[in-house]
Amino acid sequence: MAISFTIEKKCRDTLGRTGVLKTPHGEVKTPVFMPVGTQATVKALTPDQVKEAGAEILLANTYHLYMRPGHELVREAGGLHKFMNWDRPILTDSGGFQVFSLGALRKVTEEGVLFASHLDGSRHMLTPEKAIEIEEALGADIIMAFDECSPWPAEYDAVAAAMERTHRWAQRCKDAKTREDQALFGIVQGGTYADLRKESAKVIDSMDFPGNAIGGLSVGEPKPLMNEMLDITVPLLSENKPRYLMGVGSFDCFVDGVARGVDMFDCVLQTRMARNGTALTRNGRLVVRNAQYARDFSPIEEGCTCYTCRHFTRAYIRHLVKAGEILGATLLTIHNIHTSVQFMKEIRRAIEEDRFLAFKNEFFANYQG
Amino acid sequence: MAISFTIEKKCRDTLGRTGVLKTPHGEVKTPVFMPVGTQATVKALTPDQVKEAGAEILLANTYHLYMRPGHELVREAGGLHKFMNWDRPILTDSGGFQVFSLGALRKVTEEGVLFASHLDGSRHMLTPEKAIEIEEALGADIIMAFDECSPWPAEYDAVAAAMERTHRWAQRCKDAKTREDQALFGIVQGGTYADLRKESAKVIDSMDFPGNAIGGLSVGEPKPLMNEMLDITVPLLSENKPRYLMGVGSFDCFVDGVARGVDMFDCVLQTRMARNGTALTRNGRLVVRNAQYARDFSPIEEGCTCYTCRHFTRAYIRHLVKAGEILGATLLTIHNIHTSVQFMKEIRRAIEEDRFLAFKNEFFANYQG
Repeated sequence: MAISFTIEKKCRDTLGRTGVLKTPHGEVKTPVFMPVGTQATVKALTPDQVKEAGAEILLANTYHLYMRPGHELVREAGGLHKFMNWDRPILTDSGGFQVFSLGALRKVTEEGVLFASHLDGSRHMLTPEKAIEIEEALGADIIMAFDECSPWPAEYDAVAAAMERTHRWAQRCKDAKTREDQALFGIVQGGTYADLRKESAKVIDSMDFPGNAIGGLSVGEPKPLMNEMLDITVPLLSENKPRYLMGVGSFDCFVDGVARGVDMFDCVLQTRMARNGTALTRNGRLVVRNAQYARDFSPIEEGCTCYTCRHFTRAYIRHLVKAGEILGATLLTIHNIHTSVQFMKEIRRAIEEDRFLAFKNEFFANYQG
Repeated sequence: MAISFTIEKKCRDTLGRTGVLKTPHGEVKTPVFMPVGTQATVKALTPDQVKEAGAEILLANTYHLYMRPGHELVREAGGLHKFMNWDRPILTDSGGFQVFSLGALRKVTEEGVLFASHLDGSRHMLTPEKAIEIEEALGADIIMAFDECSPWPAEYDAVAAAMERTHRWAQRCKDAKTREDQALFGIVQGGTYADLRKESAKVIDSMDFPGNAIGGLSVGEPKPLMNEMLDITVPLLSENKPRYLMGVGSFDCFVDGVARGVDMFDCVLQTRMARNGTALTRNGRLVVRNAQYARDFSPIEEGCTCYTCRHFTRAYIRHLVKAGEILGATLLTIHNIHTSVQFMKEIRRAIEEDRFLAFKNEFFANYQG
């Protein structure tokens, strides 16, 4: 087995739990937030800075790396870990969500997805087999099955068809997989239709992947609907396997997801917000570029122990952002990752100390979104 | 005295020398290369990365910081060192060169320079007194006199007039200065006219600044002409004071400048090249974005001990540059600063070991520009 997962502590009042995910590149404590390194780099940071910010595992994007620099080149480089100088665990998505995001530029058939590159318009075909070939060349610790993600809103029949295809593709991914040192996760689809979600959870769970992901959420639907889908999906996924909620990364979603039994999260929010001059804090977002911070010589977040908050003021970071300086993005990215990782640590501690429900209630009493 | 300068070793065959420049924020070994942090940040690096790359002293730009975020804000922040979290020495220019570079947007009178901001077109006046006021608010260890830099080529009479005004302005700067913990350097002008350079060197040297700079070179003139100007200027500047050649930073100019008695250099070349995807190496420039490096899994410069060369390949950095990733600029900036600082260390060692002339000859035998 490429990975193993051990539950350490269960919450009394919710489905929340803490655990340890062992991978070929080390252990990850769950629940965990995975920063995104789309093109083999967490945007604006060196790997050392990513580590110092506390990240234990990264996500990289198969679609982007397939397009540039190409998976064969990454294979020649010795795999993604060596290529990008990251010796901790990596998870790669399958490219399914990215080609789905290309909209009019792609065409879905039973075989796979025909799409035009966002870089040069060249035509490519991603299939379950091709996705696995690419993910094996990249060499992440955890790889994802190639799925078809439905938009929101979408007609029942279309969502059902995409879900069924996702199940067939999941089996093809399983069949195509050759590397023993990588763990393949299945992905539950089904949009926001309760019966489809249930069906998908049962089918994917029955295929006995070492981990199960919930895809197709946080694609535009209201948050209560996402939580409803988690409520009906998660209990159908094997308890002793890690559960990964894809593409979700705001603090409220961390709390809501963990309470519903999710162990893993990833999101570009932390890094994208940073490049837009916005900091994530415990109480909501802080738009550093706003004029009110021009002469604010306090740190981004009082009490935060990240490199940024230990050494720089809101006034300085605002200056950098206004001046278009790269360091502004770097400092905010460090903070946003650090504070997200720290927040997840607090969630873990709350579960360990049997007070997660109180933590959750207190969090939502103060959260300003 | 805000600074002191001690010559440690003189070259047998050239005017080169090693020395120690003591400032309120620590010592600097000369000859020294000063990376540029125009807007209170060395572009694409954290201060920790700048230190790790070996920089002992930074240059920051008065014009830019006056325009944004404003010198009063920096003063309120506790000065530039605290604002940008850099506890080693800083040198600020006077803004003279920058307003000169604005071209049609500025008008020079005896009083000073009236100019339009590059940010919003608003009108401002920089005078010797105003430049000193700003530089005192910024609080660098070494501050520069406000000068008028002539373009190249330029008519004799215009260059002479600018030089004479520079001398009058130098005295006004001296008179305006109030802080005891900052050292004010004078600037020699005179374009590429030998008699003007000589006159300017004599006048500026006679004003007894704690250090003397040579301005108005590397503004388009051929390199042999720059060296010729150094040959006639430097010997007229007090031997026991640091000599600073402004805006010059290529390796060949380091060697040529040191051989002619220069102690300090600054340049945006290292950081700007990096952002354009180009690495500086001992033997010339390496355009990492070129296709020939796509599958080159060797470091930027074999034997280099910088963070970039210890951990990343040309292929990876090329990927980052092609993909427009910030980390590409960061890694190349680290290398370019590190290799420049290391090169200057080698120059120092060559002088200390009485073999600088051989070092110089060997360098030019291999240098490809």
